[in-house]
Order: sequence, then structure tokens, then C-alpha cells
Amino acid sequence: MLDVFGWTQYRKHILKARVTTAGFHRRVRGRFGTLAEPDLLINDIRPARYGALVLPGGFHGHGFDEAYDARIYELARHIHHNGGYIVTMCVGILPIADAGLLKGRRATTYPYSRHDNITRLQAGGAIVVDDPVVVDNRIISCRGPAASLEVVLLLMEMLMGGETVREVRKYMLS
Amino acid sequence: MLDVFGWTQYRKHILKARVTTAGFHRRVRGRFGTLAEPDLLINDIRPARYGALVLPGGFHGHGFDEAYDARIYELARHIHHNGGYIVTMCVGILPIADAGLLKGRRATTYPYSRHDNITRLQAGGAIVVDDPVVVDNRIISCRGPAASLEVVLLLMEMLMGGETVREVRKYMLS
Repeated sequence: MLDVFGWTQYRKHILKARVTTAGFHRRVRGRFGTLAEPDLLINDIRPARYGALVLPGGFHGHGFDEAYDARIYELARHIHHNGGYIVTMCVGILPIADAGLLKGRRATTYPYSRHDNITRLQAGGAIVVDDPVVVDNRIISCRGPAASLEVVLLLMEMLMGGETVREVRKYMLS
Repeated sequence: MLDVFGWTQYRKHILKARVTTAGFHRRVRGRFGTLAEPDLLINDIRPARYGALVLPGGFHGHGFDEAYDARIYELARHIHHNGGYIVTMCVGILPIADAGLLKGRRATTYPYSRHDNITRLQAGGAIVVDDPVVVDNRIISCRGPAASLEVVLLLMEMLMGGETVREVRKYMLS
């Protein structure tokens, strides 16, 4: 998200979009070593300010379990009910299923896991589809991390239109 | 690098590779907001320990200029002369040209820039090629950020073989 949407700040003549990072902790270390210090704590997010919620995946047993939290469900419902988009990668879709936003809707998730992601998605009422990227009712899901770039560009297209995406693709050589 | 090579630690039955991050500062903020705290400072790197040097790109005028440093040139020469690989993204190839490692060799770089990347590459004796990814004499260059995933997988193939790459691609859904 930062690497793609950052170009909208850099290029003067295209629309601007601002990304706010949020988390349960002031400092977060990814399973493979990446580091983040969220701009805001989840409790301090005012959902009316945002046009989209992006929920990346992670590893169950290594921090992702925290995403199954009533505050995440409420945040997702609020933003979606206001007409906003939900974008998820890998298991990021599972809390969205738990939030009740996928009843009768198509979605996909990460297929290789010690946890039964497919069953959890179905338990939330989703119609599980085996496609790399699925879009239904302003909710985007993808099977795995390699699709993250395309999914973020898809959100950009929905929020800002195809011309912005073409410009960012040009500068990213995508 | 972290997100791809991290899978070699996660999957028990494949070869392991360890990534050490290094920088001129203990804390580095990317142009678009990403954060890193390098494992080691450049001065503390012992080049004989590494089979590859990965030099990502960046923005001239926003920190990347620091990469034109005798310590980077020496590190690149040492690792390459020992039979190691050099992997670069975007303008990451330019300090490698300055280090004298590209004389008569094919390479590519980021084409959209206020700085004249192509001329600088040619000044280092490189044959500039307009391909997304170029490999010559164990030195990999690519035009832009969107190729980063493929370039890192290419390094993994050179270091660890195609079977490891197939396994990591499977888990990344790539």
C-alpha cells in the first residue's frame, strides 16, 4: 500500500490518496522481519474518515490471531456500510467473514495453511472461489501474497480511476 | 528480500538462506513511509560471509545518494570477486557501475528520472539494454520496482536452485 499509493504524493498532476497505517501495537515486527510503526492505534481510528480498509494477511500463531477482534469487525462494517472498500490479502479475509460482511458473497483465501481457512470462510457464509483475486460487493480478496500488488492497484482503480493507475503503473514499470 | 527468503526459514524441508540487512543508519525511513532498522551498519559487514549483495533503488535527493560511497563499491567488488551475486533494482545498479563492475557488461536501470540514469550507467562502461530484467556476469539489474519479486526469485534460483524457487512460488501463490 505505501509503495504503490506513495506515487500519488510524488507525481504532482495525479489525484492524491493518503494511507494511514494502524495496529494494536506501536511497533510491529512481521513474521519474516519487516518492521512497522503504525501511524495510529486501532482505538484511535475514526472510521468515517476513510474510504477503504486494507487488511493484509499474516501467520496464525505469529500475531495474526489478533485480527479476530471486535474492533476490527466494527471498523470493517463501518467503512463498508459507508460505501467504502475492503481489501484483503491471504487470510486477511477471514476476520471480514467473521464480521458478517460475506454472507452469500464470493471470496477467496490462502489455500496452504495448518488452519482450515476455507472452512472458516464458509462458516461466515461466503461462497469460496478458487481464483487468484475475487471482487464482490466492494470487498476484494486474494489467495496469496504474490497478488498483493495487483490487488492494491485494483483498489486504486476503484478509488481514483484508471488514469491514475496507468500513471502509477508507468512509474513502477508494472 | 525478507518476504521471499523468509519462506526458506519457514518451510522445514527446503534449503535455508539468511538475509542480513545493512545500512548507513540504525533507522531508515523509505521515501513512501516504509521503515527499516538494519541488522548491521555498513562498516560492520564482513563481505566474506555473504554470497550476494542486494542493492535496492531509491530516490536521488531523498537518501539514495548515500549509496555512491567507497564502502559500497568495495563491498560489491569483494562479494562479486569471491564469486557472489549482485542484485539491484532501479537505480541500485548505478553505484555498481561506479564501482567498475559493469565494463563491457549488459545492464538496465530506471528510465524515468530527473537524473540521467542511462548516461551514468554508460559512463561506467555498461552496455545499456532496455529489458525489464538483465543478467550478465552474476550481476542482475531491473528497470523498475514492479520487477523486484521476479529479481529476488531469480537470485534464489541462482543460489539455491529451481526446486527451492518452485516451493517458495507455491507458498507465495506466484
